[in-house]
Amino acid sequence: MATPKNHDIRLNKRPVGLPGPADFELAETPVPVPGSGQVLVRNLFMSVDPYMRGRMSERSSYVAPFQVGETLSGGAVGKVVDGNSRFTPGDYVVSQNGWREWFVSDGSDLRKVDPAVAPVQAYLGALGMPGLTAYAGLKRVGQLTPEDRVFVSAAAGAVGSVACQIARAMGCEVVVGSVGTDAKRQWLESLGIEAFNYRDTDDLAGTIAEHMPGGIDLDFENVGGAHLEAALDNMREQGRIVLCGLIDQYNDAEPPPGPRNLDLLLKRRLAMRGFIVIDHFDLFENFLQDMSRWIAEGKVQRRETIVNGIENAPAALIGLFRGDNIGKMLVKLADDD
Amino acid sequence: MATPKNHDIRLNKRPVGLPGPADFELAETPVPVPGSGQVLVRNLFMSVDPYMRGRMSERSSYVAPFQVGETLSGGAVGKVVDGNSRFTPGDYVVSQNGWREWFVSDGSDLRKVDPAVAPVQAYLGALGMPGLTAYAGLKRVGQLTPEDRVFVSAAAGAVGSVACQIARAMGCEVVVGSVGTDAKRQWLESLGIEAFNYRDTDDLAGTIAEHMPGGIDLDFENVGGAHLEAALDNMREQGRIVLCGLIDQYNDAEPPPGPRNLDLLLKRRLAMRGFIVIDHFDLFENFLQDMSRWIAEGKVQRRETIVNGIENAPAALIGLFRGDNIGKMLVKLADDD
Repeated sequence: MATPKNHDIRLNKRPVGLPGPADFELAETPVPVPGSGQVLVRNLFMSVDPYMRGRMSERSSYVAPFQVGETLSGGAVGKVVDGNSRFTPGDYVVSQNGWREWFVSDGSDLRKVDPAVAPVQAYLGALGMPGLTAYAGLKRVGQLTPEDRVFVSAAAGAVGSVACQIARAMGCEVVVGSVGTDAKRQWLESLGIEAFNYRDTDDLAGTIAEHMPGGIDLDFENVGGAHLEAALDNMREQGRIVLCGLIDQYNDAEPPPGPRNLDLLLKRRLAMRGFIVIDHFDLFENFLQDMSRWIAEGKVQRRETIVNGIENAPAALIGLFRGDNIGKMLVKLADDD
Repeated sequence: MATPKNHDIRLNKRPVGLPGPADFELAETPVPVPGSGQVLVRNLFMSVDPYMRGRMSERSSYVAPFQVGETLSGGAVGKVVDGNSRFTPGDYVVSQNGWREWFVSDGSDLRKVDPAVAPVQAYLGALGMPGLTAYAGLKRVGQLTPEDRVFVSAAAGAVGSVACQIARAMGCEVVVGSVGTDAKRQWLESLGIEAFNYRDTDDLAGTIAEHMPGGIDLDFENVGGAHLEAALDNMREQGRIVLCGLIDQYNDAEPPPGPRNLDLLLKRRLAMRGFIVIDHFDLFENFLQDMSRWIAEGKVQRRETIVNGIENAPAALIGLFRGDNIGKMLVKLADDD
């Protein structure tokens, strides 16, 4: 058997607008050798997430930008190959050392995960940051109650699809999602979530109103732009808009104007609040318990779109912004053997 | 002495854009005669407030629109001329029966006010709805703490000037207001409030940053538009935007686009919340106590811009949107004799 090589993806140049293949560079290096006390990890899956686009730009954001020429990073789940005092070969670990096949670590940045609860890649999705994002956004930021009528944009995405299902699991009867393909709509409907394909309508606000004649109490906003404006039009008095993402504008060189109907915030006494999951890690243990139970009960179902091979990771990220993924977008880096 | 006549102002037609004199009609009628159990009130001062512009349009809002041909209404303070079992001639009463000189009432819509605390017209300003608006917006909606750095737009207006002073009275050290004339700036400065004239700068965000190098924790937003965008640029993480008014756009036929930097809500985890004072009447007794004390201590100083005669009430309202007023805009309807 040939000696395995390590591959990683580096930022070749900062993208303008939608990233293209030339913005990334695939590099080959030897598999690193762990030093004293270090573990060697082989990544099995890496996560691609919309927020990574922000880190590719120089503009300041809530996480430091990636540096040109350096290996990108992001969530990954891998298997310990060489252990240390805390980790045993065969342990599955989640890290922020994605966009590479192999890495060494002293273990301080690794978290063991239990493959008995769900396949390990679930810890990058429903049981990981996207799941916690949906959970914290609904429960803490949005103060969800079972009486709420919930609208979710990008509802078939990694966060959106979990948000819809958490809202149902928490007792909300009216949960409506907007998606961009009929396949996504059908998947959500198969989960018992009402959904529509926004590409089928010229009147997004009217379409929301048809699906939610009583209006929206809680808008879980992943998209922004026309979606946010249409949701605002349908908000009930005292409603809450939880601003989780603005995927519509992550690739815009110049930010677009905001919605024209912000006066509704005042007239209907609405609250709009942005949040970032890293502020809510204190909820992680509660989240894991609740989510593990919901998965066991079948109340939250996972779905993944898997791209094979690290060389295809850039295409997977670019695909996020075209809406290629149903559920969580993952890149499979190695078989678990 | 000639028998007095009653005058009132009616909505002649719905304004397009900024209201003009032709949108109003001055009517003369006999002074009404109180029926059994009714009181006769002579209004001394009436209030003109920006929200009234919304009621002149047909667009639905949080209060019912005025009807064409009917007498307008709004806050007023008057003196009881003929009493009943609850009101004695000479009592001062606040009502929503402004835009008329005389009216009769069974008393259920009247509230007695104490002229010993402050001149009675103060109950239309710092001790009335504008004061409660500032109080509820800062204390309840904005959850003001003494550590907050506070920015107030339209800071020399009826609400803004009280908001600035409440923030100082509650212990905030950094309170900065934006105003539209040097006279307004000088007035605020004389109260110990840092202020700038926004007409002096082409870079509103940069000017705020000069005055508040540490950024804004709480934006008490009365203006919207470019002001809101500039405030957003200067918000600190976890900051709160209390949306009290959007005077910049009340006269626009088509609503303007929102700010281009709404992504900051997310990146800086900001909360933006609209409110309307009528939801916070339960605070009224606490407010009256606090505000009476602050006025007695000199911590809140009142200022009024007074227009004489009901025939000039339309011009007073129109003047609000040009920023003619320093402090509370009032129309004096009669001498208190």
